[in-house]
Amino acid sequence: MNSEIIAIGSELLTPYRVDTNSLFLTDQLNQFGSEVVWKTVVGDDRIRLTETIALAWKRSDLIFTIGGLGPTEDDLTRECAAAALGKQLRQDDSLVEEIEARFRARNMEMPRINLRQAMVIEDAVVMKNRNGTAPGLWIEDRGKVLVLLPGPPRELRPMFEEFCLQRLRQLLPPAIILSRVLRLTGLTESAAEELAAPIYTRYQNPVTTILASPGEVQLHLRSRGKDEAEAQDPLEKLSSQLEQALGGYIFSTSGESLEEVVGELLRTQKATLSVAESCTGGLLAQRITSVSGSSSYFLGGIVCYSNAVKLDWLDVPSDSLEQDGAVSAVVAQALAEGIRRKINSTLGVGITGVAGPTGGTSHKPVGLVYLALAGPEGTQVIEKHYLGERETIRWQASQAALDLIRRTLAGKVQNGLI
Amino acid sequence: MNSEIIAIGSELLTPYRVDTNSLFLTDQLNQFGSEVVWKTVVGDDRIRLTETIALAWKRSDLIFTIGGLGPTEDDLTRECAAAALGKQLRQDDSLVEEIEARFRARNMEMPRINLRQAMVIEDAVVMKNRNGTAPGLWIEDRGKVLVLLPGPPRELRPMFEEFCLQRLRQLLPPAIILSRVLRLTGLTESAAEELAAPIYTRYQNPVTTILASPGEVQLHLRSRGKDEAEAQDPLEKLSSQLEQALGGYIFSTSGESLEEVVGELLRTQKATLSVAESCTGGLLAQRITSVSGSSSYFLGGIVCYSNAVKLDWLDVPSDSLEQDGAVSAVVAQALAEGIRRKINSTLGVGITGVAGPTGGTSHKPVGLVYLALAGPEGTQVIEKHYLGERETIRWQASQAALDLIRRTLAGKVQNGLI
Repeated sequence: MNSEIIAIGSELLTPYRVDTNSLFLTDQLNQFGSEVVWKTVVGDDRIRLTETIALAWKRSDLIFTIGGLGPTEDDLTRECAAAALGKQLRQDDSLVEEIEARFRARNMEMPRINLRQAMVIEDAVVMKNRNGTAPGLWIEDRGKVLVLLPGPPRELRPMFEEFCLQRLRQLLPPAIILSRVLRLTGLTESAAEELAAPIYTRYQNPVTTILASPGEVQLHLRSRGKDEAEAQDPLEKLSSQLEQALGGYIFSTSGESLEEVVGELLRTQKATLSVAESCTGGLLAQRITSVSGSSSYFLGGIVCYSNAVKLDWLDVPSDSLEQDGAVSAVVAQALAEGIRRKINSTLGVGITGVAGPTGGTSHKPVGLVYLALAGPEGTQVIEKHYLGERETIRWQASQAALDLIRRTLAGKVQNGLI
Repeated sequence: MNSEIIAIGSELLTPYRVDTNSLFLTDQLNQFGSEVVWKTVVGDDRIRLTETIALAWKRSDLIFTIGGLGPTEDDLTRECAAAALGKQLRQDDSLVEEIEARFRARNMEMPRINLRQAMVIEDAVVMKNRNGTAPGLWIEDRGKVLVLLPGPPRELRPMFEEFCLQRLRQLLPPAIILSRVLRLTGLTESAAEELAAPIYTRYQNPVTTILASPGEVQLHLRSRGKDEAEAQDPLEKLSSQLEQALGGYIFSTSGESLEEVVGELLRTQKATLSVAESCTGGLLAQRITSVSGSSSYFLGGIVCYSNAVKLDWLDVPSDSLEQDGAVSAVVAQALAEGIRRKINSTLGVGITGVAGPTGGTSHKPVGLVYLALAGPEGTQVIEKHYLGERETIRWQASQAALDLIRRTLAGKVQNGLI
């Protein structure tokens, strides 16, 4: 059974808002083996909305509308859906009572316009809304289904999970889709493709999709079967082959971010971390501390934008700054070792580079970054050349720094040194 | 003339990708007074795509398709558009030559599949693609227009700007839409609405939309006229009335971010800045340094996650830490004054708080944040209570800190003190 999604609301036809609810619905529907084949955005316009629902009812089996269930004149989904299907709308007295009770509980009288939300299409099943006044409706007729869902995600999602999931399970042939995301860093999309394609193209199931963003490549594996076992088996097989081929580039296979993976490694190894950032300007510290509980392993950081701070706070030798310049391997090393010594942490990171768009020279172009990691066994320094805008360069540098920590800690685990 | 946008590509029907090109197109079309009344996403499927274009051609005046112009079997837009309009496709020899030349210039032979990109619908005007091999097509027939644009934004945008803008100007009645965004911080959406609604509801033109995100409220004003003067006049009038009513809450009226506004104030006043962050963990420094050229006023920062760093590096008195705790007004003040003194900057910021989700107590709940700004005239400390998740709380705290700097510097300008 194919699906179609209709997102309703004039605000979704402005330059400011995009429909994202359909991503959640698509993911859910895919897990039942139902593909979304059309998505439509239509405004709060009676004629166009009725036409859109009527067309979907004609051409698709499973239709989800999102939004337009509020109490105001603009909220037309109930009426237009009834008109499109040629069905009656009637007031549901128990719904009137429920909505009244909701208002009473807050010591308010129900405004008369909220009566609109108690209007129900004939033969429809009412879906309770735990987080708002707009109930949803589920209409089945001659093998087709039309579902009206509210627009706010915090109303839509629980309603879908509590009500629609169960109904869909009854309705659709048993099918399960399991998915896994392999998250990689340290290689380009085409390099990942080159390593992964010979493996995943041998499989019709799972289906593999490669998505890339600066500093990260993701392999999305989706495996289908009529039950868990049938879906699990090929997923495990493909996943383990890919993990073998891509090895150290993979930092997570169950959704964790790179900063979470690094945090977990630091925590289990009882190691602490400090950072000295120049070009990333606090981004690395911000990412590390975005993880709840990071105060147990992250001791602190310095954003050493001026040379004075590099000199005074981190004992970067003035010779190095003069001879090699602030953007150099020796300064990166001095930053990493300086912050580690001063803060007395297990590991210290130093980053210096040219984030651009100005400040580059032929010798030290925009995108040149030096990263250093100082630890009990010495200091590693790496040189990177990034392309892109200021924020892209900064992001990639922070990503590479996190990955350097990850590889160092994971390598130790593998070598049995800790 | 109403518009309709069709985004083409099976990847836009997965849970991972959303169409954002239509936001750019909508903005452009709105500026000609054309409203977008439908947006459709359809996959790389011959039957569905033909049906979608045929329907749009029937019901709308101005139709833009995005994507599906590549050289592969999946790229069906040319063929389906021809079928939907009942027109012929023919090979354009000058296009063949151009595409061949593009490959030759890179010492490559044109793969035969690229011949598909030289297929042109009869009566169509070819739109050159500066950044790729896929040319666009512009088809006018009996007062209707169908435009086929490539999917990658870096191909679509220049093509639209260089070709479509001029054609639309000839086609559409003279109309101009001017827009302005008032960006506010320091008040809630409903407080902004309460102040602004009595003013903007008096105007049919401009149309005003309020959008809110954590720590920011935006008023989007869109004014329409047959020429610049006719659109400009009501825009200026409404804008100045709103600016008067909302006063100090407005930080920008021409698109600048809060960190850019603060940067500009620091630069013109020749003031420098340093920051000491606890709960925001580097976010404030990262935002400040995201502005190119920030090294001229931002000297450095410390992420003082551990108490040892607060004590050793910033001379926060151990008494304060013990008696009042790390999250307290006195510690925020000590951080601001400590970093300012140590780095020798004009202004110093201190932030300490409970970002959550753990670590809150009944006395100091999650969301409690103290912000301090130290300057030549003394130190201000403010206490804030934020709701939301860790990242939302951190974001709002960084926003409030930037706004405290802005208000302090802007206040001085107004009082003529600097």
